Amino acid sequence: MNAASPVCPVLGQWRSRAEAALETRLPPAHVVPEKLHAAMRYAVLGGGKRVRPALCYATGSLLGIPLDWVDDAACAVEFIHAYSLVHDDLPAMDDDDLRRGRPTTHRAFDEATAILAGDALQCLAFELLSRPLTDGPTAAQQLRQIRTLSRACGSLGMAGGQAMDLAVSAGQIDERQLETIHRQKTGALICAAVRLAADLALPEDAPAYAGLDRCAAALGLAFQIRDDILDLTADTATLGKRQGADLAHDKATYPQLMGLAAAQQCAAQLHQQALDELAPFGAAADPLRALADELLNRHC
Amino acid sequence: MNAASPVCPVLGQWRSRAEAALETRLPPAHVVPEKLHAAMRYAVLGGGKRVRPALCYATGSLLGIPLDWVDDAACAVEFIHAYSLVHDDLPAMDDDDLRRGRPTTHRAFDEATAILAGDALQCLAFELLSRPLTDGPTAAQQLRQIRTLSRACGSLGMAGGQAMDLAVSAGQIDERQLETIHRQKTGALICAAVRLAADLALPEDAPAYAGLDRCAAALGLAFQIRDDILDLTADTATLGKRQGADLAHDKATYPQLMGLAAAQQCAAQLHQQALDELAPFGAAADPLRALADELLNRHC
Repeated sequence: MNAASPVCPVLGQWRSRAEAALETRLPPAHVVPEKLHAAMRYAVLGGGKRVRPALCYATGSLLGIPLDWVDDAACAVEFIHAYSLVHDDLPAMDDDDLRRGRPTTHRAFDEATAILAGDALQCLAFELLSRPLTDGPTAAQQLRQIRTLSRACGSLGMAGGQAMDLAVSAGQIDERQLETIHRQKTGALICAAVRLAADLALPEDAPAYAGLDRCAAALGLAFQIRDDILDLTADTATLGKRQGADLAHDKATYPQLMGLAAAQQCAAQLHQQALDELAPFGAAADPLRALADELLNRHC
Repeated sequence: MNAASPVCPVLGQWRSRAEAALETRLPPAHVVPEKLHAAMRYAVLGGGKRVRPALCYATGSLLGIPLDWVDDAACAVEFIHAYSLVHDDLPAMDDDDLRRGRPTTHRAFDEATAILAGDALQCLAFELLSRPLTDGPTAAQQLRQIRTLSRACGSLGMAGGQAMDLAVSAGQIDERQLETIHRQKTGALICAAVRLAADLALPEDAPAYAGLDRCAAALGLAFQIRDDILDLTADTATLGKRQGADLAHDKATYPQLMGLAAAQQCAAQLHQQALDELAPFGAAADPLRALADELLNRHC
């Protein structure tokens, strides 16, 4: 997906900011161990959509947080996302050769380097959020962000969702179990992207924090259903990954469980739920609204 | 190694505390996803020596920190160590079948589960250090611990050391390069174990902080040389892992580069360096001294 293209102006705008921030926060490729650093950069700087950083920035913008206070969190959540893709693509997991239109990291380098690059990206995310700052979030806010991110990617979040996803095959599960998997596997990190910005402005027990969280949860699930639909209907060149990969992996998807039309309707309902949660924020939520619209109407 | 045996009384004492702390900080095996949680518990609770938690506790004891303030850090550093062993043992890395006298995690479960268990253990370490506390370290201290740990295990620390170790074969490197690899691959986390306790009591620019750091660096390297020697001289049953594994993997070791006698002398010199750094602390450092003595005179 070329997010900077006219069809995705909102995402494209946040994406440019994210690309610059990611570039400066990765270890330079000439620093020893060069191959590991090259693999980390390859895994991150390979043209992702930057959905999670965009959600982080749009939420920061909604809450009036200076965007340079949000850069570290936007990069941290993207490092976690990138590491999870590298590990999910490994032969022992989904065994994928193509990602973002290029060979997957273990194909471009080797398996050992891919495993280590993922490991190092995960811990770089936490290193970023723990940097000493003179102007920016307080130590208490940074600690809260680390709590948010670490919970989202652990065994009760993203890693747990991937484990459940690997454990079931398409014929075995119902809609409810599929929702549980998606809420953990992709939903948890999407929610974290929104929370990481909210952690800098709202107390954890604020109604607005809970509202943003429900918005993110609805968006995350809608985004995944859209992904399932695109896996069926788009072609490999547009997707940048193998079309029909879910079917090939015997993975359950929403269109397969409920039919294409019902899946589309379900995504639209979740989209509306997300927008409803943004109503109390008025015009300040316009950037997040626009991003939600773009994410759920995307074709790749 | 049975660390609770009479030959290792100091390590055994800290080990009991670590075992209890680790047990309560791991997700219960009956919680979904059960297999992932079982693998995480298997990887951690499999009878390790608990060298890193012991260093953390002994340093805490030296500095007069309540030991229940140190439990989270002791567990966090051991979770990182356990995850690194799980990933290092994978077929794409060292391809080992035996660890701590039992099948390695990917052998007892499967490769995908082992990768995910390692991933989830890494982030559990950071989750632990970011928990909201009413009685214990301040947010600023917790944040400093997270910085210490994340730096130690990233691409310029443990993960980088493993990458360098994989990139070279025994015939290619000299003593200096081997030292660099060991200082990152094992030394960085050993230093982090000591720093994590020091972070709770000393400013980063205190001479005592630097002294403890030099002590830990010397200990870490001596510990690794002792490991290299044992890989040559002990048997598989005593080691709990395959004897001669370094040779089999074409890994450079100190005895191989400099001869057995010189390697033993080098370890003894580093041991003395570590003790010298502890001199300014007087009798308060006795637990750490006793631990250092035990670690460097161990036979397994």
